[in-house]
Amino acid sequence: MDKTIGIFGGGQLGRMMAQAALPLNIQCTFFEAHTDCPSAALGQVYSTQAEHGLAEFIQSADVFSLEFENTPLKDVDVLIQKKDLHPPRQALAIAQNRLSEKALFDELAIPVAPYQAVDSLESLTLAVNDLGLPIVLKTATGGYDGKGQFVLRSADQIDQAWQELGPAGSLIAESFVTFSREVSIIAVRGQNGDVKTWPLAENHHHNGILSHSIVPAPNSADLQPVAQDYITRLLNHLNYVGVLTLELFVTDKGLYANEMAPRVHNSGHWSIEGAVCSQFENHVRAVAGLPLGLTEVIRPTVMVNIIGQHPKTEDVLALEGAHLHLYNKTERAGRKIGHITLMPTDTTQLTVLCRQLASILPNPLALTQDMTI
Amino acid sequence: MDKTIGIFGGGQLGRMMAQAALPLNIQCTFFEAHTDCPSAALGQVYSTQAEHGLAEFIQSADVFSLEFENTPLKDVDVLIQKKDLHPPRQALAIAQNRLSEKALFDELAIPVAPYQAVDSLESLTLAVNDLGLPIVLKTATGGYDGKGQFVLRSADQIDQAWQELGPAGSLIAESFVTFSREVSIIAVRGQNGDVKTWPLAENHHHNGILSHSIVPAPNSADLQPVAQDYITRLLNHLNYVGVLTLELFVTDKGLYANEMAPRVHNSGHWSIEGAVCSQFENHVRAVAGLPLGLTEVIRPTVMVNIIGQHPKTEDVLALEGAHLHLYNKTERAGRKIGHITLMPTDTTQLTVLCRQLASILPNPLALTQDMTI
Repeated sequence: MDKTIGIFGGGQLGRMMAQAALPLNIQCTFFEAHTDCPSAALGQVYSTQAEHGLAEFIQSADVFSLEFENTPLKDVDVLIQKKDLHPPRQALAIAQNRLSEKALFDELAIPVAPYQAVDSLESLTLAVNDLGLPIVLKTATGGYDGKGQFVLRSADQIDQAWQELGPAGSLIAESFVTFSREVSIIAVRGQNGDVKTWPLAENHHHNGILSHSIVPAPNSADLQPVAQDYITRLLNHLNYVGVLTLELFVTDKGLYANEMAPRVHNSGHWSIEGAVCSQFENHVRAVAGLPLGLTEVIRPTVMVNIIGQHPKTEDVLALEGAHLHLYNKTERAGRKIGHITLMPTDTTQLTVLCRQLASILPNPLALTQDMTI
Repeated sequence: MDKTIGIFGGGQLGRMMAQAALPLNIQCTFFEAHTDCPSAALGQVYSTQAEHGLAEFIQSADVFSLEFENTPLKDVDVLIQKKDLHPPRQALAIAQNRLSEKALFDELAIPVAPYQAVDSLESLTLAVNDLGLPIVLKTATGGYDGKGQFVLRSADQIDQAWQELGPAGSLIAESFVTFSREVSIIAVRGQNGDVKTWPLAENHHHNGILSHSIVPAPNSADLQPVAQDYITRLLNHLNYVGVLTLELFVTDKGLYANEMAPRVHNSGHWSIEGAVCSQFENHVRAVAGLPLGLTEVIRPTVMVNIIGQHPKTEDVLALEGAHLHLYNKTERAGRKIGHITLMPTDTTQLTVLCRQLASILPNPLALTQDMTI
């Protein structure tokens, strides 16, 4: 083997990919603004700021992937003249534009909330009339973790919404879907077309940032085959190679697709300990052209993000069965700097562990609410 | 946290320790002859050949450990003037001398095969008379994987045995124990005295090299508490911190200690996937003064060594549920260059997986025999 995978981005996702690649004798290199990024411990980082950074990065590896969904397409276009990228450029381009993404969902008959393109104050007013209120106005490109969004609840917010987001250019207005919960499905497709899917994760957010995921999502037996079908349509249509994530809302009318991420995903971090083969290892296997590993769950797992501030390592490791993953990032409000994996034997133990965890996390977010597995 | 652990040695054991340390934001440095050793991907290697190598290595980390049981005591003695070593120097010194080791086992009432010290042709003849034949003659220091040993089956081999091993200096003659199988117990002791033990591994050798381990050792429910008691005596007596391994023979008269290794052990590699917390992570936790993780088994696990030559990566990963760990070592006859972890659901699946594995390993060793879990 002894392949090298070049990864656009050098954050925690790249770090965890490289950790999974190492035992397979697969090295990683990274393309990232800051050479002291979380991935730096595991491979050479080529700076996006350096004059010949891209050329050197392209030179550094045999095959390429990404951990950053906003990887510039212009860089990708230079790369694919010379070497292979998995997932394909098309998947990245679509995922970078919410309007293209919705169009693809429509094409593949994957249900989405009613939406309309918005590119002027007039078209925003029209969208409010057509879709009804409330609506979520989002930039078609950019934005993550709740940034670049405006929730319109009354018509007198139209001007303010346009003022805030209008300058961003192309926008999308989406009906505000009433959902009972958010789930995500993660799947991987190999170079031979083999598809494997992990169980649905139930995701809990706080201020637009993922707080924790529970896997398998409780009471999701009926949802799993539907979600699996949707993501398989996407993977096959895009001739995708690697890990893809699809975020979904659970509504009265069934699952509605929210958005897709053409990469490993925060809601799949549980799989490092909780699945036979993690999203990171399977992504590496797919990109390297290797057979895929089993995606079955070993034990129900809860993944809790560490946001903004580090807890004491000794406090976390004192929790029964807890695993700690730190990303070697500096503390900053709202920043994901690590995660904790819990593998409780039952809901009672989960409740105990979550209360203990909430008491030692500087920033327990939504963790204090009761959960079931 | 952000501690750095300095590790004497830089082989695959150091590599896997550093892999376990990384998610805890704990860095490792290494002290090793060859700076392109298996651990090099994960931390700075200080050369044992460099003029100020030891001084720079001591400077490079906050606390120290080892992955190489023949770490020179003279280097350790320089270190412990300045910084802490876990496990303690005494454990290392005893493990480096089979006579001291047996004396410790005797002191702690841990059964061993009858033995005698040998330092001359005369004392060898005496040992043969006292112990009876067959006996195993071993050098008191040095030797591993079956090297430095001579099995004496008849009195006319005494001269040959002495010729071969006599020049090595101090020797030990051990009664040839009739055992049904070899097992090992691995335990970890924290800085607070907390002890956790993994289940017994059943170990299969081929030409003196570990071929594969099955965990939990089949039919070992009665043996587990006994082995656990023995290793706990050793850990507490030595005021040990870190992972210790005790190899044992299963005989008609119960368990006999063979030898101890003051480090993580090949027969514990299964724990990366098979236990809640691996031997590597728990060793790192102990050395860094952190709480220990659970040692319970997630699923019965079989660990198979890759010896001498690499199989094709794609062949290994095509085996259902298989995990591959390569050490980034060059091929050489008899050399451990990786391992494979299988987590079969039952004996039937194990048999199928082992046959498949035997057919794709260039060097299947003893794997072709049938196993049970």
